Amino acid sequence: MGSAYASTLPQLGTLATKLDRDIWRVSNGMLEIKFFEPGALVPPLEMFDAVRAGAIDAAFSSPGFWGNKVPALNLFAAIPFGPSAQEFLAWIYFGGGQELFNEIYHANGIHSLFCGLIAPEASGWFRKRIRTVDDLKGLKMRFFGLGAKVVNKLGVITSRLTSGDIFVAFENGEIDAAEFSMPAIDMKLGLHRMIKNYYFPGWHQPATLFELMINLKKWESLPASGKAQVEAVCGDNIRYGLAEGEASQFQALKTLRSKGVTIRR
Amino acid sequence: MGSAYASTLPQLGTLATKLDRDIWRVSNGMLEIKFFEPGALVPPLEMFDAVRAGAIDAAFSSPGFWGNKVPALNLFAAIPFGPSAQEFLAWIYFGGGQELFNEIYHANGIHSLFCGLIAPEASGWFRKRIRTVDDLKGLKMRFFGLGAKVVNKLGVITSRLTSGDIFVAFENGEIDAAEFSMPAIDMKLGLHRMIKNYYFPGWHQPATLFELMINLKKWESLPASGKAQVEAVCGDNIRYGLAEGEASQFQALKTLRSKGVTIRR
Repeated sequence: MGSAYASTLPQLGTLATKLDRDIWRVSNGMLEIKFFEPGALVPPLEMFDAVRAGAIDAAFSSPGFWGNKVPALNLFAAIPFGPSAQEFLAWIYFGGGQELFNEIYHANGIHSLFCGLIAPEASGWFRKRIRTVDDLKGLKMRFFGLGAKVVNKLGVITSRLTSGDIFVAFENGEIDAAEFSMPAIDMKLGLHRMIKNYYFPGWHQPATLFELMINLKKWESLPASGKAQVEAVCGDNIRYGLAEGEASQFQALKTLRSKGVTIRR
Repeated sequence: MGSAYASTLPQLGTLATKLDRDIWRVSNGMLEIKFFEPGALVPPLEMFDAVRAGAIDAAFSSPGFWGNKVPALNLFAAIPFGPSAQEFLAWIYFGGGQELFNEIYHANGIHSLFCGLIAPEASGWFRKRIRTVDDLKGLKMRFFGLGAKVVNKLGVITSRLTSGDIFVAFENGEIDAAEFSMPAIDMKLGLHRMIKNYYFPGWHQPATLFELMINLKKWESLPASGKAQVEAVCGDNIRYGLAEGEASQFQALKTLRSKGVTIRR
């Protein structure tokens, strides 16, 4: 299993590595979904094609990664001003979401399972305080997903930097602001040493879903018990992500504040 | 596995029977936790002692059922004005709740796993509209759990009727009001044919947790894979209950309204 997220990242990493461990335990070692760090098998952005072709069996990512291939997949990752975690889950499992999701992936030779969820993201880091919508005009900002389309309409000039490049871009003055993820993860970027305005909560990703993509033929070749094991472990991963995210937000914000960051709404 | 809830009840029933089916599938038939309707093995209120003694292997219930034996267990079921589902889960899995829970149950010869969750309950059915806190004084009301202690202080005279007795108690004038559960479940009581004021949401059970109790020796005798299977399936049951509850509330309230019930806040 390739992963879009390093094992060291809070939430993203624990969800991916927990999956590896739990599948092994639940199947008594009969089924193994081994975690590989991003890029160890194939570059993260090529995982969709690699799973489809069977070059790798599985990948842990977010459906939003493949929005450039199938725009509808953005709706299964995170929706700006969108549903809370439990509203999102209600739609997925009891409102027809799962069926649409299967239809899209099966047409692409992949079976994907919802396999994790993280807490609401922050609006991000801003060099200057934002007081009115006009302050956003001309702002250069790192942004991701559907949220970028929203702020573009307000005049924000967005770029899609990876986590490693954000710090340097701030330093060089290439950007004035950046959203990345939730507080416990954002803290890892180290931006609080340079930028003091942190806006929370965000509006662009109230809940974000993650997935385990498996090559469709590989999935179909699993015995019924193997399928049930993957389904149960992925379902439990959603429970875990929800609890972990809720538990970590407060502590992370408190730590940021103790480091001189002003938390703004 | 004895059950405190009939298989026909929405949420309560689906959570209990799903557990039976999933354990069988995930373990490839090696492990079976067979669902029995309430009372088929032992009376529901005797399940705690029956599991402890090993007379039955397991039981599906809510920790609140055993509040008369161990008052602290009320805190693991539902807390008036208490946490939302995700706050509750954060405390259980990342805030020390699970450890306290194990300590209590292990001292009683039982291993219990959190194994389901339902949506916020309604404040219930009221013959007359409630306009001020004074209207509660002297009101005779069916009530359950910690919430009953709260309304007692406001002058409500509470009784703890089972689901089957509530309708008759209203008819005979023995009670003026009753809370039971969430809209999709309350509808099954048929009270809407007689009582037209329904208050939603409630304040007494914002989220309710369910458990799978297993005889401690039986639990310890399971292989590591068996334990992992039960844990994964129970964790997934929490994900399922959260999604199902969120999906069913709106429809149930709409149906009640179409039957002439006034939904009040």
